[in-house]
Amino acid sequence: MFDKVISPCRSRRLHRYFRNGKLTLLCLILTVIMFRAYLGAGRFGTPEKDLNEIRQTFAYLRRRAEPRRILESVSTASQFHSRVYRYADFDAARIFNDGDGGGVGELKRNESEPYRLGARISDWDNERLRWLRRNPKFPNFVGRRKPRVLLVTGSSPKPCENPVGDHYLLKSLKNKVDYCRLHGLEMFYNMALLDAEMSGFWAKLPLIRKLLVSHPEVELLWWMDSDAMFTDMAFELPWERYKNHNLILHGWDHKVYGEKHWVGLNTGSFLLRNCQWSLDLLDVWAPMGPVGKAREEAGEVLTRELKDRPVFEADDQSAMVYILATQREKWKDKVYLENAFYLHGYWGILVDRYEEMIDSYHPGLGDQRWPLVTHFVGCKPCGEFGDYSVERCLKQMNRAYNFGDNQILQMYGFGHKTLASRRVVRIRNDSGKPLEVEDEFGLLHPPFKSVKLNSY
Amino acid sequence: MFDKVISPCRSRRLHRYFRNGKLTLLCLILTVIMFRAYLGAGRFGTPEKDLNEIRQTFAYLRRRAEPRRILESVSTASQFHSRVYRYADFDAARIFNDGDGGGVGELKRNESEPYRLGARISDWDNERLRWLRRNPKFPNFVGRRKPRVLLVTGSSPKPCENPVGDHYLLKSLKNKVDYCRLHGLEMFYNMALLDAEMSGFWAKLPLIRKLLVSHPEVELLWWMDSDAMFTDMAFELPWERYKNHNLILHGWDHKVYGEKHWVGLNTGSFLLRNCQWSLDLLDVWAPMGPVGKAREEAGEVLTRELKDRPVFEADDQSAMVYILATQREKWKDKVYLENAFYLHGYWGILVDRYEEMIDSYHPGLGDQRWPLVTHFVGCKPCGEFGDYSVERCLKQMNRAYNFGDNQILQMYGFGHKTLASRRVVRIRNDSGKPLEVEDEFGLLHPPFKSVKLNSY
Repeated sequence: MFDKVISPCRSRRLHRYFRNGKLTLLCLILTVIMFRAYLGAGRFGTPEKDLNEIRQTFAYLRRRAEPRRILESVSTASQFHSRVYRYADFDAARIFNDGDGGGVGELKRNESEPYRLGARISDWDNERLRWLRRNPKFPNFVGRRKPRVLLVTGSSPKPCENPVGDHYLLKSLKNKVDYCRLHGLEMFYNMALLDAEMSGFWAKLPLIRKLLVSHPEVELLWWMDSDAMFTDMAFELPWERYKNHNLILHGWDHKVYGEKHWVGLNTGSFLLRNCQWSLDLLDVWAPMGPVGKAREEAGEVLTRELKDRPVFEADDQSAMVYILATQREKWKDKVYLENAFYLHGYWGILVDRYEEMIDSYHPGLGDQRWPLVTHFVGCKPCGEFGDYSVERCLKQMNRAYNFGDNQILQMYGFGHKTLASRRVVRIRNDSGKPLEVEDEFGLLHPPFKSVKLNSY
Repeated sequence: MFDKVISPCRSRRLHRYFRNGKLTLLCLILTVIMFRAYLGAGRFGTPEKDLNEIRQTFAYLRRRAEPRRILESVSTASQFHSRVYRYADFDAARIFNDGDGGGVGELKRNESEPYRLGARISDWDNERLRWLRRNPKFPNFVGRRKPRVLLVTGSSPKPCENPVGDHYLLKSLKNKVDYCRLHGLEMFYNMALLDAEMSGFWAKLPLIRKLLVSHPEVELLWWMDSDAMFTDMAFELPWERYKNHNLILHGWDHKVYGEKHWVGLNTGSFLLRNCQWSLDLLDVWAPMGPVGKAREEAGEVLTRELKDRPVFEADDQSAMVYILATQREKWKDKVYLENAFYLHGYWGILVDRYEEMIDSYHPGLGDQRWPLVTHFVGCKPCGEFGDYSVERCLKQMNRAYNFGDNQILQMYGFGHKTLASRRVVRIRNDSGKPLEVEDEFGLLHPPFKSVKLNSY
């Protein structure tokens, strides 16, 4: 009807009027809200609610074109504050910029400021000692010369892009649960990104620091990647060997200190003592990690300074080589580069030999004859499917899992039909005398399971 | 060239010659192999290798048309024998009929024979007691009046059909790892089908029996379904309450003994004491389980005898109701039907109330105010995707997981942004005094973690 009555010129003017009118109306609404907010609570509602409404309105106007995620982060953070944690102090203003893929809503750090893992702790050894004395029920040694060990691992909180990736993560976790149960280790599986800046392989640093300072009773923290699997269930770490060291990694002295080779050591499986030295090392390690300029520029330094390193952003492993090689006087005497057994075992040289190992050796050796850990470096079971090497990875991870699982199943008289098969078969007849079965590798009631997690 | 020179009649004859010639050559090869086999080892290779070659050749000729799986089972079983378990006695003839979906290669049982979980054990209490006395380093009580508990759970060895199913299994396992670490429980995650006849929900029976008799040090075995999650990390089971009972399940006396209601109790989360009584109960429980005629006919009985039971094959839970209701004089006095807290909590009446619980209550209660366990009965996170109720299930499982996970994260100053979000945010500022943070629910160093898994 309007179209018939109103001329084109006039219709354009009317449109302009309406558009301006909408804007005017919006400003009016905002003004009213702001008035209410500053008038305070009472007949008009709470200031907090109003301030939230203002934030949301401005957020909407400002970010209308931005991904939905940001908008959600502002409004749901408010909900979170008011609903989930009434019992904790919480600064809602800190939920400012969640960012894409970021785990934590934090005020964006000024990139010129140095990155910090947390508030400075400088007297940890004494504080920890005092705590241990006050808490004798949580000793840091749980057996004759056996430290309390916390095995820490984890994976992304997101489902894997590769449909079978989570299945491998599940098996990998079961594998670690089995080893820890046999060896009296505690375990922490992390699925939370504690610091959005420290994403990917760097995510372990904030986690490790947090666990160390929250659990003074833990003597050694054993970090292990999710793509590393235990393949020797009978091998107990030689704890005494490390009593004077604070960082134990698989690697070679000459490769790290001599060649500065980028894979001279491996940070996919390492032990870190709970002490000030370790907190200091973490503080020195972390600054190459924050995503963005820091990580990229550090990557260039590492490629330039380390032997054979490809071009890519800084990773925690290369950073560690660099730190040890360039600050050896500070760290070297407390670092043990272990290569007598496979604290980390590169899968490429191990997985095709499993049958030969079964033929010739037995669990408990931990080394190239029967590796403690088979680590699938370079495999991405959680990533996109389709690459031939992903198929090889998955097939070999399955074999490695079964190789380790056979050592668990044999305790109960079973074993996988083949290293490729998920099916299990009996390997001995069922007698009516379960306590007289031969416990071939002594895994049912092993001496290294003798721990007292707390004393009386 | 041949086609030009040779007439049709002659070409048919030639073809026949060639075909027969091939067969003759094959027979010749087999004969040579058999000769070598019976001549023994030495210059000609090992007899075992030869026998394997013969088996494989015959298997090929005989089963060429059959599904590849059977062929693999014969040849790989031989490989398995010769390669994987040289150190164990093994009867390869028992690998007879693996069947589809069957986990174990066993001689097919004559269905008229009663099903047995294993060789009869009749003096377990005394045998166990003798073992415990001989092995003081593995006591069955690990704390002041606290029994050694093994939490047992598991899932299929196959990847889930639903792509996100394994992700939920992973989170569910992490959830249990967290609870067990805090409460000083050991854990066993099973991914092996020990008895092909006892598939599905019945698979737990052979597993439970095997673990009980292999681990006399375990006082209580706590079975928990993979679709059940801990939602109260602070609740410690009242062990003393059960000291005179051997089976503890969530349920109601009147529902089981009075109404014979098919959900009068729940076998998704229950405790079983390690004793002869329990082995006897398992023996009485198992016969309704074997897949096929036994399970179907038992299903008909259960539907007829129990209240409100739908028509389907026998399940372990209905079978337990039936056994307790019809043999109460034998079992009732040692069975505790717990309903003071949610040893099992039906998700349908809990998950929409989490925010209300956070508003009004706190961890440590274990009951309808803050349920110990939220159990997603009827959900199939591992099954086919697409059903609305599956969506609701997955969404609520996520919320339940986050609800429980928040109780872990809060120890470290973090929490999920919302119960729906995998992102975490800080809930308190990071101070330089980690040992002075308020441990609100006492979960960092809880008294119920005071266990000595082995004494000195």
